[in-house]
Amino acid sequence: MRANSRDRDLRDRAAAVIPGGMFGHQSTRLLPDDYPQFFSRAKGARLWDADGNELLDFMCAYGPNLMGYADDAIDDAYVSRMRQGDTMTGPTGLIVELAEQFTRMVTHADWAIFCKNGGDATQIALMTARAHTGRKTVVLAKGAYHGAAPWCATRPNGVTPEDKANQVFCVYNDIASLEAAVAAAGDDLAAIFAAPMKHDAFTDQVLPDPAYARRARELCDSTGALLVVDDVRAGLRIARDCSWSAVGVQPDLSSWGKCFANGHPISALLGANKAKRAAAQIFTTGSFWYQAAPMAAALETLRRVRETDYLEHMEGLGTRLRDGLAERAAASGFGFRQTGPVTMPLFLFDEDPDLRKGFFWSSQMLKRGVYVHPWHNMFLCAAMTPADIDQALDAAEDSFVALKAQAGSLEPVAKMSFLLA
Amino acid sequence: MRANSRDRDLRDRAAAVIPGGMFGHQSTRLLPDDYPQFFSRAKGARLWDADGNELLDFMCAYGPNLMGYADDAIDDAYVSRMRQGDTMTGPTGLIVELAEQFTRMVTHADWAIFCKNGGDATQIALMTARAHTGRKTVVLAKGAYHGAAPWCATRPNGVTPEDKANQVFCVYNDIASLEAAVAAAGDDLAAIFAAPMKHDAFTDQVLPDPAYARRARELCDSTGALLVVDDVRAGLRIARDCSWSAVGVQPDLSSWGKCFANGHPISALLGANKAKRAAAQIFTTGSFWYQAAPMAAALETLRRVRETDYLEHMEGLGTRLRDGLAERAAASGFGFRQTGPVTMPLFLFDEDPDLRKGFFWSSQMLKRGVYVHPWHNMFLCAAMTPADIDQALDAAEDSFVALKAQAGSLEPVAKMSFLLA
Repeated sequence: MRANSRDRDLRDRAAAVIPGGMFGHQSTRLLPDDYPQFFSRAKGARLWDADGNELLDFMCAYGPNLMGYADDAIDDAYVSRMRQGDTMTGPTGLIVELAEQFTRMVTHADWAIFCKNGGDATQIALMTARAHTGRKTVVLAKGAYHGAAPWCATRPNGVTPEDKANQVFCVYNDIASLEAAVAAAGDDLAAIFAAPMKHDAFTDQVLPDPAYARRARELCDSTGALLVVDDVRAGLRIARDCSWSAVGVQPDLSSWGKCFANGHPISALLGANKAKRAAAQIFTTGSFWYQAAPMAAALETLRRVRETDYLEHMEGLGTRLRDGLAERAAASGFGFRQTGPVTMPLFLFDEDPDLRKGFFWSSQMLKRGVYVHPWHNMFLCAAMTPADIDQALDAAEDSFVALKAQAGSLEPVAKMSFLLA
Repeated sequence: MRANSRDRDLRDRAAAVIPGGMFGHQSTRLLPDDYPQFFSRAKGARLWDADGNELLDFMCAYGPNLMGYADDAIDDAYVSRMRQGDTMTGPTGLIVELAEQFTRMVTHADWAIFCKNGGDATQIALMTARAHTGRKTVVLAKGAYHGAAPWCATRPNGVTPEDKANQVFCVYNDIASLEAAVAAAGDDLAAIFAAPMKHDAFTDQVLPDPAYARRARELCDSTGALLVVDDVRAGLRIARDCSWSAVGVQPDLSSWGKCFANGHPISALLGANKAKRAAAQIFTTGSFWYQAAPMAAALETLRRVRETDYLEHMEGLGTRLRDGLAERAAASGFGFRQTGPVTMPLFLFDEDPDLRKGFFWSSQMLKRGVYVHPWHNMFLCAAMTPADIDQALDAAEDSFVALKAQAGSLEPVAKMSFLLA
């Protein structure tokens, strides 16, 4: 039995002073009941929850942990810069160096604006596209996540119809629907937004069809709209470049966040020169956007991205995990779908509409010290080792056995019943 | 002659990779030409620019520097927590402790949501008010700054009319205009937003009229709308509580940012219990909002706020500065207006519509090692000493003399000519 008394105590206190007990994507409201809400420590690929239970972590902070938690060299770069001055009355030369390094690495990019939230970067992309074109309409793929600001909010509460004006939706990878959406925008198309892959929650991930990506590029070129790839979630786990470089398509703008400073708070919009004037015309800013320390951490992270095999290492581990899980799932007789890039897997069971199998199996993994997510894509990090993957595979084998023993008698997962609607 | 070759070199490089050479509020585009764009170091009340020139800094990073740059105890708290894990797959218990401490300190507050940008907090306030009331319209004071998101953007580029829908404007401190705005909102009033004082750029600051604040409270009570005080800029420099506690009015929501972790990246929305259910209904989040290290820094900063005389110390210094400047300005014969709280002064010269006097005088201050702003409110910090203020007063005396010698022959400030329009 995992200890959880500290977590329970913290939840009780949180219920008093935090709406809903916790807000946003790190709330465990839609996770199995035994998942911890609070953590105490992290190092490399491992997390310890508030009660001290050690976990091999396949969420990687929902992405930010790219090179390993509490990476000494990256954190040293952060601290060294922080002690000299961090948030000051102006930026340091690091902002220039980071813009130079990042744009050198990302093929389509000539310039950079740095911000804090991934959603800041997507918001600035939208504003830049509107300023560039003098038009308003944006084409988005239905269900795609581009942040939690009202314009792209996934929940209606507190959001007005006007917040979501000037949007036309298409279906990801469906060229005809993309063309129809662009046609519907008429002469008002400012931008096409695209996730680098379909990485929506609760559903299989889908890799981009190169023909879809090329058609999006063509439609932008023929209309003068800007093509925006939102690489906040997938950036640096698919390529050392914008993720759509893997399908041979260069956007005009790309948004980045989460992991390019290995969890230190910084995001970015990168852009091509044709959108530079528009980007200079909008006013966008934030109290901490000029912080020097996250830029120092980003420079060290990007150096590692360029100079090490971190990506091939993660891909090798991801393939080992995928193959090993497929084998064990097949042996257990479960239809077990693993989708998305191997560095960002998502697991769903066949015939599991309210996720009762997924919840049970994930809880079994947790009991065995492996933190997986039952409905959101996961993230590998470069600090993982083959032995870590083997630990996960051993846990999975036992968890499939446990699921098989219980599968006939699983209770419905009431909190996920909205998926049945 | 101040050295500036490194600054010039960085500006040249920045022009190539950053739109406009720099974005947002830390761009020096609207500052005198000799103001440095880049800095290298900061400690206590002092900054060093990229060329190593030392400056006594009255901008304090536009607010975040409350206790002194690179404060050892606060930064130690940050680093110690960071090394154990910072951005992880979930929050630590520090988020609960910080919510408890902050709400205990702020009279109206029962709960907290933590975020990164000040604008995140104002955006969440707006969403919460709309979710709470089921209405859309917000009353804002004309010219007030609540962030750079499209809904409150101060520049039209990239912003649509729909972004600014459901807004009615009043004049700060003008009760009749506030009543008219509320009447214009009809039965759709979701919130009244108020800055704790009028702290708009380019114009004299104005302290809140208690009768105006009370009327805003009454109008919210009678309509069921929420009263929001945006304390991002002024918080903790007027009171150890929401700034409107100084005029005896408690809002339902208050937004905080900039300085409550002494420059480490964190902001917050604090709220009363009546708005807690609505705050739990909206979905709001960000990649780095659960970071543990800024919360550790915030706890240490708030401890100092509670346990030291930092505020009385800053007020004493602010009064010394205000009185000393008034005396020197009078001796020089200039009409020199100092407005706002003494801890957040703003300086404007009489008969100076394009700020040519202000620019010249500010440049003279800079030459003498004192960084003041010619049109934005400034910020004192607790690391300043009476000797620092005296240094500023000596510089000011000489700068008034220099201005007097040149006042008749000052060139127009072309970049500020928009103020004449």
